[in-house]
Amino acid sequence: MKTIDLALLGFGNVGKAFARLLAAKKQELLEDFGFLPRITAIATKKHGVCIDPDGLDDQALIHLLDNGKPLDLAVLDRTGFKGDTYEFIRQAPAHVLVETTPVNPHSGLPALDYLHAGANQGLHLITANKGPVVYGFRELTALTKQHGRLFRFESAVMDGAPIFSLFRGPLAGTKILSFYGILNSCTNLLLDRMRSGETLEQAIAYGASIGITETDPSNDVDGWDAAIKVAALSNVLLGQNLTPMDVQPTGIRGITPDMIALAEAQGKRWKLVCQGGWKDDGYQVSVKPEMVGPESPLYTVDGTSSYVSFELDVLPGLGILETNPSPKTTAFGLLADLIDIVKSETT
Amino acid sequence: MKTIDLALLGFGNVGKAFARLLAAKKQELLEDFGFLPRITAIATKKHGVCIDPDGLDDQALIHLLDNGKPLDLAVLDRTGFKGDTYEFIRQAPAHVLVETTPVNPHSGLPALDYLHAGANQGLHLITANKGPVVYGFRELTALTKQHGRLFRFESAVMDGAPIFSLFRGPLAGTKILSFYGILNSCTNLLLDRMRSGETLEQAIAYGASIGITETDPSNDVDGWDAAIKVAALSNVLLGQNLTPMDVQPTGIRGITPDMIALAEAQGKRWKLVCQGGWKDDGYQVSVKPEMVGPESPLYTVDGTSSYVSFELDVLPGLGILETNPSPKTTAFGLLADLIDIVKSETT
Repeated sequence: MKTIDLALLGFGNVGKAFARLLAAKKQELLEDFGFLPRITAIATKKHGVCIDPDGLDDQALIHLLDNGKPLDLAVLDRTGFKGDTYEFIRQAPAHVLVETTPVNPHSGLPALDYLHAGANQGLHLITANKGPVVYGFRELTALTKQHGRLFRFESAVMDGAPIFSLFRGPLAGTKILSFYGILNSCTNLLLDRMRSGETLEQAIAYGASIGITETDPSNDVDGWDAAIKVAALSNVLLGQNLTPMDVQPTGIRGITPDMIALAEAQGKRWKLVCQGGWKDDGYQVSVKPEMVGPESPLYTVDGTSSYVSFELDVLPGLGILETNPSPKTTAFGLLADLIDIVKSETT
Repeated sequence: MKTIDLALLGFGNVGKAFARLLAAKKQELLEDFGFLPRITAIATKKHGVCIDPDGLDDQALIHLLDNGKPLDLAVLDRTGFKGDTYEFIRQAPAHVLVETTPVNPHSGLPALDYLHAGANQGLHLITANKGPVVYGFRELTALTKQHGRLFRFESAVMDGAPIFSLFRGPLAGTKILSFYGILNSCTNLLLDRMRSGETLEQAIAYGASIGITETDPSNDVDGWDAAIKVAALSNVLLGQNLTPMDVQPTGIRGITPDMIALAEAQGKRWKLVCQGGWKDDGYQVSVKPEMVGPESPLYTVDGTSSYVSFELDVLPGLGILETNPSPKTTAFGLLADLIDIVKSETT
């Protein structure tokens, strides 16, 4: 039996779901993979920091989460830690840094710097953030490798659906020629609502009411979130070196109720379609609204579902559909990364 | 550099596509995985047997395939081999047995016996056949394990799309609760043709003309092929021990043009839907035609495409779509198995 100590940076919905998932899967992980995950440190911006080199008490942590009161992590702290995030990364008694902090999608900061610090500290890195993947994939991969560690980020695109791990493992013997899909579930939901008669503004308001859209929805609505994911897939899987700016996304602001009605009349639906791949004139990417008919797999991708299809040298079309994502789904992506890291240490 | 010697049992469309794929990917396999695959023996029922302990000449083999004349493998033989298939398995100078012979779907024979013999000979086993997976998964897994070898069969369900490897690798930390999908691409094509106005008989005749349906199409049309795949997924991924008979499939013979028209009028489509999973009253499986609407991912699965969606403890819905399969796609499944085997030997 091996104990794997984790430091969690960020403890929002995803971080909390991860802590719950670890507690729920403890016995399974021990039996199937021979390790016991142990959270030894958590740092947040608003709810304090806690460190316990012997591992935070699972039950106490879950109790704190279930409590309903504003979270105060300091009650679990056994070290009296004072310091900033970088100091936390230096002092955290951990083997793996799990990063789920809010991130600036146009720079990957501050997550990128945190992960950089973690790598220099000799930690394995797991992030659920797209930003550090787009802006730091090569550097963080190289830096962790220098220390014999791994940089993993399965949750960065399509939550816990296996994308990056699929091409590291089962599809390692393939070459990707291109991909297309629906990578931003927020706009997909908004377009669905508009199909039911709402305006974009009404749809955004609905999205905000169920916690899907943010106060400033432009990151989703103007196609930036999709563009970041297109850049992430391009950089990691197709050897590119793109920023979201290179993708020059067109969002869904221009889609009017009339356009929705026109599509319906033709038996089609508007979707925010992401694409990347090799064309005659080199590597091309795009994010823009398109009308798709029932001959396209995108037609049935509704609500908060997302979809990506790959064209490979040996498989003309391989599509991955993820339906009904939740923080638990994203948390599984983090766990899949953790299992991959533990496996790498035992082989 | 490591040379991996392969004995091919069966050399139909899939076997030939595999030989071509190996020749095309030789350099890539060497660079990416450090091994050189080498076909040292091929046995067929109608086109002879050839063995060359130094590896059959790639170019000579491809030339033979490209020739257009009836295949005569004996011209490549350097050993004057005489004997039956079991003698071939005993004598083949190989490390891996790649089995793609025609198989009886209701018994898995003779492929099952061939693989059994190969395992006893200390060979790794790769098959593209569903039969041996359904009827021999546990036994062949245990038998190969005794010899420190692996039994692999990615191509048995949905050709080269990663299914079994996905749950051995990226999704190893999950539990499958249920699955559903379209696993028989032949009936899916037939239903498509009927939607365009053909009768079942006309559709079958068309299928035969493009080599999709067999002279006796009942294996597909009556749902047996789908039932075998449901049993294979159930046995390998969900710990069951089913035969196709246990699935009691209902095929598409009962689907009339009137029923097709009625579905169209409701905006729906008939699909041969496969299901398996845990229900309140235990483990349940079914294969039967169902009408599905545009709210279902199955609605857009057309032609010879196939699809499977898994409900996991940590992912509410993960779907895999394979479009435009070909013998090359199936051949990739065999190659993915081979890469997996080589990796297992180097870690």
